[in-house]
Amino acid sequence: MRAIEVRKPGDIHVVEVQKPELETDKDVLVKVQAVGICGSDMHIYHGSNPFTVYPRIIGHEVGGIVEEVGSGVHGLRRGDRVALEPISSCGVCYACKKGRPNVCAKLEVFGVHRDGGMREWMVAPEANWHKVNGDLPFEAAALVEPMTIGAQAAYRGNIEPGDTVFIMGAGPTGIACLIMAKQKGATVFISDLQANRLDYAKQVGADFTIHLPHEKPEAVLFEKTDGEFANVVIDAVGTSTTFAEAVKLASVAGTVVTLGFNETPSDIPSLLLTKKELTVAGSRLQTNQFPDVIRQVNEQKVDPASIISHRFDFDEVKKAIELLEKEPAHVRKAVLIFEREDESK
Amino acid sequence: MRAIEVRKPGDIHVVEVQKPELETDKDVLVKVQAVGICGSDMHIYHGSNPFTVYPRIIGHEVGGIVEEVGSGVHGLRRGDRVALEPISSCGVCYACKKGRPNVCAKLEVFGVHRDGGMREWMVAPEANWHKVNGDLPFEAAALVEPMTIGAQAAYRGNIEPGDTVFIMGAGPTGIACLIMAKQKGATVFISDLQANRLDYAKQVGADFTIHLPHEKPEAVLFEKTDGEFANVVIDAVGTSTTFAEAVKLASVAGTVVTLGFNETPSDIPSLLLTKKELTVAGSRLQTNQFPDVIRQVNEQKVDPASIISHRFDFDEVKKAIELLEKEPAHVRKAVLIFEREDESK
Repeated sequence: MRAIEVRKPGDIHVVEVQKPELETDKDVLVKVQAVGICGSDMHIYHGSNPFTVYPRIIGHEVGGIVEEVGSGVHGLRRGDRVALEPISSCGVCYACKKGRPNVCAKLEVFGVHRDGGMREWMVAPEANWHKVNGDLPFEAAALVEPMTIGAQAAYRGNIEPGDTVFIMGAGPTGIACLIMAKQKGATVFISDLQANRLDYAKQVGADFTIHLPHEKPEAVLFEKTDGEFANVVIDAVGTSTTFAEAVKLASVAGTVVTLGFNETPSDIPSLLLTKKELTVAGSRLQTNQFPDVIRQVNEQKVDPASIISHRFDFDEVKKAIELLEKEPAHVRKAVLIFEREDESK
Repeated sequence: MRAIEVRKPGDIHVVEVQKPELETDKDVLVKVQAVGICGSDMHIYHGSNPFTVYPRIIGHEVGGIVEEVGSGVHGLRRGDRVALEPISSCGVCYACKKGRPNVCAKLEVFGVHRDGGMREWMVAPEANWHKVNGDLPFEAAALVEPMTIGAQAAYRGNIEPGDTVFIMGAGPTGIACLIMAKQKGATVFISDLQANRLDYAKQVGADFTIHLPHEKPEAVLFEKTDGEFANVVIDAVGTSTTFAEAVKLASVAGTVVTLGFNETPSDIPSLLLTKKELTVAGSRLQTNQFPDVIRQVNEQKVDPASIISHRFDFDEVKKAIELLEKEPAHVRKAVLIFEREDESK
């Protein structure tokens, strides 16, 4: 079968590998149908992900159809459409025991620490596959995963109905946060440097957009919230400046969520945290967000596929990567399609 | 009646003021019997509290006995022993509606924003007085308040049984955090520069002490926790360095609590928060911690008076302040006594 492998940084190819087989009775073999391309795939391609060992089959936003199940699998059967939950955890460390397998001491992410889903068939334990509605397009199933990243940020931010939420950045992660914040009943402000991203943010529910650098978040929030500022600020940009600004723009008793992976320290005075009694929460991957996101998707409250701006055939991966490199601002989300939906029926 | 007033920074006197009277039917008149001296009283004395308008009757760690109640007071009656909850909030702002009156938009702290308890009689609404056991010494009732500061830090840190907690600083606040962390069933490490403070920390339950600068918290925690570090780190020192160090020493899925009021920014990289999915929580004053702390005190699980190292008569306040200025490391907690306990019976 064919797979997309990053041999070493900067070197990506469609290669021929052996079709995987069930290894335990809990395993499920899935025919992969659609895989989203994520920023972290690009990091692996560029050699800027510290966890990756090369060569690596990338891809962790995976939708497909069950082809074979082990004898100990009871929740899935051949023909089910599924989305991949791409994390593997030990179950016994402090994080796992606290229900936080996303920061497990032995965490492995499919497509990062171990081979991922950009291949024709993939085997993973039943626990890693979530069944979706039988009529959900595969590309939507693939994009449940990035929605769970937004759901995790909303969960870490403890967003409640009526809260004012300010999301910094209207890229794919910011958009997922926006969609999930709206699901929680919040009023959402979102900022970006790109007008086209803000236009799209409005389409998917943003109440107010802030076009940087022409508009100043502090001034806009002050005016629109009567000086209260944002109850929850989500930093989906992750520079050292945005994180520090997020802490400034949060209201009393507010929460700041950072999805940044920045080694450069931000200037955070303890005074701001104490005076406002803020909570500042890191948000990484997700913890058990698949069931609720899939419920929202199945109930057509959320359409993960609406974010797709570009579709490529599986073997056009180099073309997709080139586009993402050259015009990142014009690609909301690119998806690799393995078989066109009508061909697969 | 007599009261202790800071006329202006550096100028503290016992003055003669009018005895207060009930102003509404919800008010309670209390004969004050013991008042603790807190670091924030010293800040007001030094002019370094930005919220204070002078002259100010200081004191917010107050124990006393009910002398008179308004007609609308149903939970207290003459002769009850009480502890003061020294905050007043509006009830209608975002913080209040979220159950966080400690950061109310119109917050007023007794002894800071409005007159406090260093006076012979004090009137406050019933909601601000908490009944304690009838045989509890007044000085213990007075020191329920600093214990609630520790309880708030434990609450903000979400300390659970079995957690490893590292408390930076064994001053009165650090000790209150230690006592409350032990009540939650944690294993507690505590650090300080002063050996005598660490000796006392051991007496009140610390499992491990770290004598700075001879012992290094990172090395001690690494060794004693098998490299996991502390699930909850409480920064009760509040320098810009301790806050940044706290974030480094927290385990995955951990929580950092800061009680610092430092305007100097700390260097906090978002990477640490995201990679470990940390929660960093400010802890200010307290939110509804009095009932649980009083239960622990009434059940003799916690003795707030055990922290007292010095007792002064009410009119010896200058002597008390002088001692705190000259030998802060040797005063665990100083309390002003209005009437000696055996005289009041």
